Amino acid sequence: MSTHGEPHRSAGADPELVLINGQAGSMSPLDRGLHFGDGVFETIACRDGRARFLALHLERLASGCERLKIPIRDLGAIREEVTRAVSGLESALIKLIVTRGPAAQRGYAWSGRETATRVLLRYRWPQEDTSAWTRGVRVRVAAMRLGENPALAGMKHLNRLEQVLARAEVPVTEAAELLLFGTSGRLVSGAMSNVFMVREGRLLTPRLDSCGVAGVMRRVVIREAARAGVVAEEGDLYERDLQSASEVFLTNARIGIWPVAMLDARALGPGPVTQQLQTLISPLLESPADA
Amino acid sequence: MSTHGEPHRSAGADPELVLINGQAGSMSPLDRGLHFGDGVFETIACRDGRARFLALHLERLASGCERLKIPIRDLGAIREEVTRAVSGLESALIKLIVTRGPAAQRGYAWSGRETATRVLLRYRWPQEDTSAWTRGVRVRVAAMRLGENPALAGMKHLNRLEQVLARAEVPVTEAAELLLFGTSGRLVSGAMSNVFMVREGRLLTPRLDSCGVAGVMRRVVIREAARAGVVAEEGDLYERDLQSASEVFLTNARIGIWPVAMLDARALGPGPVTQQLQTLISPLLESPADA
Repeated sequence: MSTHGEPHRSAGADPELVLINGQAGSMSPLDRGLHFGDGVFETIACRDGRARFLALHLERLASGCERLKIPIRDLGAIREEVTRAVSGLESALIKLIVTRGPAAQRGYAWSGRETATRVLLRYRWPQEDTSAWTRGVRVRVAAMRLGENPALAGMKHLNRLEQVLARAEVPVTEAAELLLFGTSGRLVSGAMSNVFMVREGRLLTPRLDSCGVAGVMRRVVIREAARAGVVAEEGDLYERDLQSASEVFLTNARIGIWPVAMLDARALGPGPVTQQLQTLISPLLESPADA
Repeated sequence: MSTHGEPHRSAGADPELVLINGQAGSMSPLDRGLHFGDGVFETIACRDGRARFLALHLERLASGCERLKIPIRDLGAIREEVTRAVSGLESALIKLIVTRGPAAQRGYAWSGRETATRVLLRYRWPQEDTSAWTRGVRVRVAAMRLGENPALAGMKHLNRLEQVLARAEVPVTEAAELLLFGTSGRLVSGAMSNVFMVREGRLLTPRLDSCGVAGVMRRVVIREAARAGVVAEEGDLYERDLQSASEVFLTNARIGIWPVAMLDARALGPGPVTQQLQTLISPLLESPADA
């Protein structure tokens, strides 16, 4: 049962477990996560009582905190907390947020005296339409373009208003995902996923050095493809690349790989490379090892 | 006394009053303000028991919420809350945050069933070095460039990680403010202020249609300058414009106008236009009317 249920919220949407710094509780209204989005997060898929790719998630979390100079005293404690939270559960989603903590002073500058806040939310696995994996999903290109800033690129930070606005362009019932370009015209990602394409037999995915989130599933797909002898090339990809792709697919920690069946008005459907990669990662998703 | 005091925090940094939706309390860890920065804020300077330019602050707040489609049911109630919070005080700073509220579902999409969260924080007026107003401040150009996105431009939203990182480039003791350019090479603003310059006798300030916050004090300065027959031109300004300016000054709700005395290694100091504008706005700062 939810610890934060309100009448207007459907039960499935509320987390079953909420821990703030390891305990039940609520957030300080002074938290810099709220004031500035000064922090990072992870969404971790859990199956068979284990958190999928936990080591990769924690590595990215630590890397983001290091870039933001948010000191995490004990990554091991976070690992144990996640492990404990999902133990014995058939499936769950963990959202982990780490912020710089309650402000020690007014304004943007941090003092170094802040103590990071850790929020763990455990959600039930959402109801799924399995046809997303097998037949693919409808995707639209968002009208909004993402601002580009190498200082933030790759990080899963808490400044996500662009994703919120992009997602609001089209109802979920009409598009499972929105594809986003940056202001320079380069393809970046989906609102909640990374994107790959197959063009003239090559597997391509956007570089993430000026924008976007370096997804854990993106990393897994690149790694597993390489093990199977398929090189995923990271590069600058434009509208014309997307339009001439024979296959397009999306990745994130929860969905694994979703083929794009329909890109705006163009029918695509699952192609052979996409299906090969699905076959490669499928065992890792169903019976997760540590990383 | 603070309601959120912790031993490591200096008393002056903590708010004296914290209201969440009009009451003492704490934040839901599900708030979309925390998860995505899905909200807006205002920093309102108060003198003689009155909130300076309150109507302008509320207008911008409402405009930001409208752009984000965050429904505010009762702007009048917010006005009353602010008015009550500062009544009888010689000086105070109010920070007002409005978010889309606790998430009604997972993910970036909002459902429309969310109820906005309103946070009011009242701080003591910070100790001031009055020489900032009279002699000016030292300012540095930040190395980091701001991402540009017209969908967010002008709004005082909660995605402020760029400002946090820019401010961290140089200690406050070495630079009172950092000036920021966008990725296109256009000057945007300071990290916490708007910027104006005088070049060949013209008063210039960056357009804010691709980036930046449309400051209330910026608006007041443009308005008061116009009343005195000085037209502030909004336009695209580049590094060369800044370097050839004879005067540069900063504005925000708290500081009013700060002349830039030193821009990186170049001495500037308060010039005649800056001082004229200071004289014009000074009565409005000291004895605030409603707007």
